[in-house]
Amino acid sequence: MKRSFIREILESIDENTISFAGGLPSEKLFPREDLKTATMKIFDNPKAFQYGLSNGITELREKIAARYTKEGFPTNKNNILITTGSQQAMYILAKFYESKDITIEEPSYLGAMNIFRLNHLKMHGIKLEDDGINIEGFKKSFKNTKLAYIIPDFQNPSATTYSDKKREEIAKIVEEEDGILIEDSPYSELYFDKKNISISSKIPKKSFHLGSFSKTLVPSLRIGWIRADEDLIKSLLIIKESIDLHSCGISQYILNEYLEDEVKYENHLQDIRDDYEKKANFFCEQLDKYLPEFKYQKPKGGMFLYGNLEGVDSFALVQKCIEKKVVYVPGNQFYIDKIPNGEIRFNYTHSSFEQIEKGIKLIKSCL
Amino acid sequence: MKRSFIREILESIDENTISFAGGLPSEKLFPREDLKTATMKIFDNPKAFQYGLSNGITELREKIAARYTKEGFPTNKNNILITTGSQQAMYILAKFYESKDITIEEPSYLGAMNIFRLNHLKMHGIKLEDDGINIEGFKKSFKNTKLAYIIPDFQNPSATTYSDKKREEIAKIVEEEDGILIEDSPYSELYFDKKNISISSKIPKKSFHLGSFSKTLVPSLRIGWIRADEDLIKSLLIIKESIDLHSCGISQYILNEYLEDEVKYENHLQDIRDDYEKKANFFCEQLDKYLPEFKYQKPKGGMFLYGNLEGVDSFALVQKCIEKKVVYVPGNQFYIDKIPNGEIRFNYTHSSFEQIEKGIKLIKSCL
Repeated sequence: MKRSFIREILESIDENTISFAGGLPSEKLFPREDLKTATMKIFDNPKAFQYGLSNGITELREKIAARYTKEGFPTNKNNILITTGSQQAMYILAKFYESKDITIEEPSYLGAMNIFRLNHLKMHGIKLEDDGINIEGFKKSFKNTKLAYIIPDFQNPSATTYSDKKREEIAKIVEEEDGILIEDSPYSELYFDKKNISISSKIPKKSFHLGSFSKTLVPSLRIGWIRADEDLIKSLLIIKESIDLHSCGISQYILNEYLEDEVKYENHLQDIRDDYEKKANFFCEQLDKYLPEFKYQKPKGGMFLYGNLEGVDSFALVQKCIEKKVVYVPGNQFYIDKIPNGEIRFNYTHSSFEQIEKGIKLIKSCL
Repeated sequence: MKRSFIREILESIDENTISFAGGLPSEKLFPREDLKTATMKIFDNPKAFQYGLSNGITELREKIAARYTKEGFPTNKNNILITTGSQQAMYILAKFYESKDITIEEPSYLGAMNIFRLNHLKMHGIKLEDDGINIEGFKKSFKNTKLAYIIPDFQNPSATTYSDKKREEIAKIVEEEDGILIEDSPYSELYFDKKNISISSKIPKKSFHLGSFSKTLVPSLRIGWIRADEDLIKSLLIIKESIDLHSCGISQYILNEYLEDEVKYENHLQDIRDDYEKKANFFCEQLDKYLPEFKYQKPKGGMFLYGNLEGVDSFALVQKCIEKKVVYVPGNQFYIDKIPNGEIRFNYTHSSFEQIEKGIKLIKSCL
């Protein structure tokens, strides 16, 4: 099995290469001073340095639960399992459903697809349309699999956001078929207009809702979570504790201190949204100016911009681009069979305005 | 599949229970001030908060490698994979050798056995004797499995340390059979007299050597590592990145700063050794005084004391003990088939002198 294209790229490109490849948040937005203040507070507490509970520290689970409840999705600490990034959340679930069949969107998140392969799940890809997964295809597939993995908010890679109608339809199908939905939601806070209602909130006993602080605070904390019915959470603990006993205690206590001030966190989230919206708009302008043959939908949030260079093999093109010191992820990586196509995923959050303009011009020069 | 007895106990007992059960290091020895000083230094570095490399940060891998080299086991950064505790190191290896047969000691580390079960490995237990695994049994088993998992230094649970002769014999068998040895070594620094030579250093291309900062610094950092041949390390990366992309960056950068001062770390290790030796001696004295029917070998390092209450079912006994507010791990937990016996593992590092005396008296009262 091959490693992830993105992870390999991240490890092989030099610092002079303009990268639209990774899903890196902007370092300028890391609230380092506030995190430092929070960190200073944990050193008086010996418990922050000892082994802890497998499901995570109680105070942090309470805070995460409270955010759900505030949004109208009643949740308590026993519905939350802290994980080592939402990557691990996905790994735990894939291990839990080892060797099962699973319905996924196409294109889908590369990391999840690798996890599913590693845990012998058989993926059934259903076409993702502009307003969410094709419902007819989903219904037919889900009847057999009874298990689905989707990213309804600013999807990775396509930036697609599900319509309210499709959210309702998905919930209804999962309920009727008595199946399970894995709703991956690392980007839901990064909206430009409004926050969407999670599908999981409509089917709380039949869903796993995955969240992360990697995109809203800093990735290196490696803290994500699973929100699910208490019995479902309990059934995952044996896997969680086998993998790493518990997630980093230092990170959990830092986060717990940081989140004491809700207003500060909300302001920080708004700063990210404003900054990313500006970046997205600029990226679109530069594309329209220098690469008008690239067809895409303008993102409404998240970190990615996705589209198509018709008649071009974007996988072949990226090899040329790497030589010219610019890189993106070719669309074929996000499909189960990886047949080359003209699709491209651009990350717009990490590069500077200058790099964005220069990078797009460089891509054009490779055509 | 059942969860780990120790993890469940840890989550269910109240704070008034004297616990000899977990493998908890002493909180009094956590170098919190020095860790705080190290932590202060990471906040100027944005890289410490961004996504990082799957194998871990370069500087930390170099420092770990240098410690091996200094001890006469030539190692460079590419031989090191940073893991989320050595628990994850074991998980990664179990996933890598999924569904294979594996030779293990009996008794063995409960957490590893659970990981092997979860990843469908078939365990073949070989009797652990006072100077290490029974060589004849090991040789016969390894001829078939070509894969073994052992803990040669102050073993968990038995505190057994392999003789130099048995170390040589194991290395010879692994070499001759062209197999692989997984050498788990979280306690090797916690010696009272001398550090043992790792078996892996004799067979560097046929071994995985597992280390951890959980027992020597603080567990909540969740940082361990695998030392192996570069090609073997590379073959593990797909699994490592699938599980959590990379281990906590905050922890890695804190550790990297802390380890800048080698002398400080060496002094700290000596403090732990001195403290634990005192605790071990005291535990032995109290056992001899209040529970003379418990037969054991005096530990030479590590965190555990292991022995036998002949004619007693230690699993039945622990249920009574829990009611009286004292707990240990019954020996049957460390065997593949878990048939009750009279064996008991005591952790001596975490309780106070007062608690040790009181706890042993309470156990006696349950007999």
